[in-house]
Order: sequence, then structure tokens, then C-alpha cells
Amino acid sequence: MPGNPSPSAGLKAVFVVRGELRLTPGKVAVQVAHAAVMLYQLAERKDRALLQRWLEGGQKKIAVLAPTLDDLELLQRHARAAGIPSVMVEDAGLTEVAPGTKTVLGLGPALPGEIDRVTGELPLL
Amino acid sequence: MPGNPSPSAGLKAVFVVRGELRLTPGKVAVQVAHAAVMLYQLAERKDRALLQRWLEGGQKKIAVLAPTLDDLELLQRHARAAGIPSVMVEDAGLTEVAPGTKTVLGLGPALPGEIDRVTGELPLL
Repeated sequence: MPGNPSPSAGLKAVFVVRGELRLTPGKVAVQVAHAAVMLYQLAERKDRALLQRWLEGGQKKIAVLAPTLDDLELLQRHARAAGIPSVMVEDAGLTEVAPGTKTVLGLGPALPGEIDRVTGELPLL
Repeated sequence: MPGNPSPSAGLKAVFVVRGELRLTPGKVAVQVAHAAVMLYQLAERKDRALLQRWLEGGQKKIAVLAPTLDDLELLQRHARAAGIPSVMVEDAGLTEVAPGTKTVLGLGPALPGEIDRVTGELPLL
């Protein structure tokens, strides 16, 4: 595998927050939490071994920033092409944004070497 | 039940962030996400009907702020006394805080009327 990542490095999930929405820190936290639960459910349905490896490695997570919805959608296409699980959070729109607004892209769990090829250029939130 | 909450109001989870740590927004988001997965796992093990009701109601979540660890621990005791599920996130300590630092208290899912009696006075994050 390229980059030869150590198994002990552990799988990670990356959450890409849509910067242009300028959500409050509390709203961002809740949207990222929603994405984390969605990734958990997806892995539970599709690949329990992957889920187990993520949990055993401490379910590593990082949050990064991308400006626009176009960026999130492009990143999701790249993730799909790389076989990385992805979810897009649509907000219920009760507070800061209109209903159905896409707020966060959740990616993983995946090997750091794989996921960094998709999101490694993005700044930390 | 006191307060007579409507079933259609839906269950919610509340995440109490430890303000004195002054974590970055990205770190807060990740810690809240960790708490959300822990609450999901707890409900899956202990009360799948409760989990299902939370999911069907849109898995509502809010993030609030309390100053100190003492506050988080007191809130957790109140939640336990009220029969509300709770989890305390301990950070792996790889970045902003020492390993084992308690960062976020996750509560729920529970009826809004029940959980608001524990956390209703706290400011939104």
C-alpha cells in the first residue's frame, strides 16, 4: 500500500465543515456529532470489522474546513472514488440555516494515508 | 409526567462542554462527536427502543457550556439521579490537553422536559 501506513496508527474519520455558513461553534459541534453518528451507523451496516478497528484505535477524529458546498461535493466524489465511506449532513434547519442545508461532510473511518490524500490539504477547524 | 412534554417534541441529547479548557472550535466539535458516539453505543446496549425514538425524532442534539470539571461531575450526578444516560469523554491528550482530561459530558437521549431540568440553565455553546 502506498505510504505504508503502520496499522498501529489507527483508522481515522475526518469531518469537513462548510465554512461559508459561518456557523456558531455550538452548531458546528452538533453537526459534526451528527456526521459521526451517521458514519458509525454506516460502518455498522456495511463493515463491522472496519468499525471495530476504528473503535480499538480510539475512534480518532479531526475536523477541517472547506469554504463551499462545491468543495464538499468534490471531496465526497474523491472519497467515493477512493472507496472511503462518506456521509453528508443536512441540517433540520431549526436555528441558523434553512432546512436541508448541507453543513458537514463526514469521511471514514479509513487509514490515515488514504484519507489524507483526500483531505490532507485542508486547514484544521 | 411533569411538564407534559409532547411525544412529537422528540428525544434529545445535550453535550456539556467544559469551558475552562478553552478548546478550539475544532477540538470541541471532535469531543462532542466522541460523546455522541458513546451515547449511541450506550443506548444500543441498554435501550434500543430509546435509541430508535431518538433517531426517528431526528437525533436532536444541543451543545451547552459549563465552566469547570466540578460542574460537569455535579451535572452527571443529577442526570444519574434522574435516570438519564450519561457519558464523560476523556481526551486521548494528543494535542491541546493532557491525556485523560475530561472534556465533555454527554447526556441523553431523554425527553426534553427531563433533560432540561438538569441542563436548562446552561448557556448555549
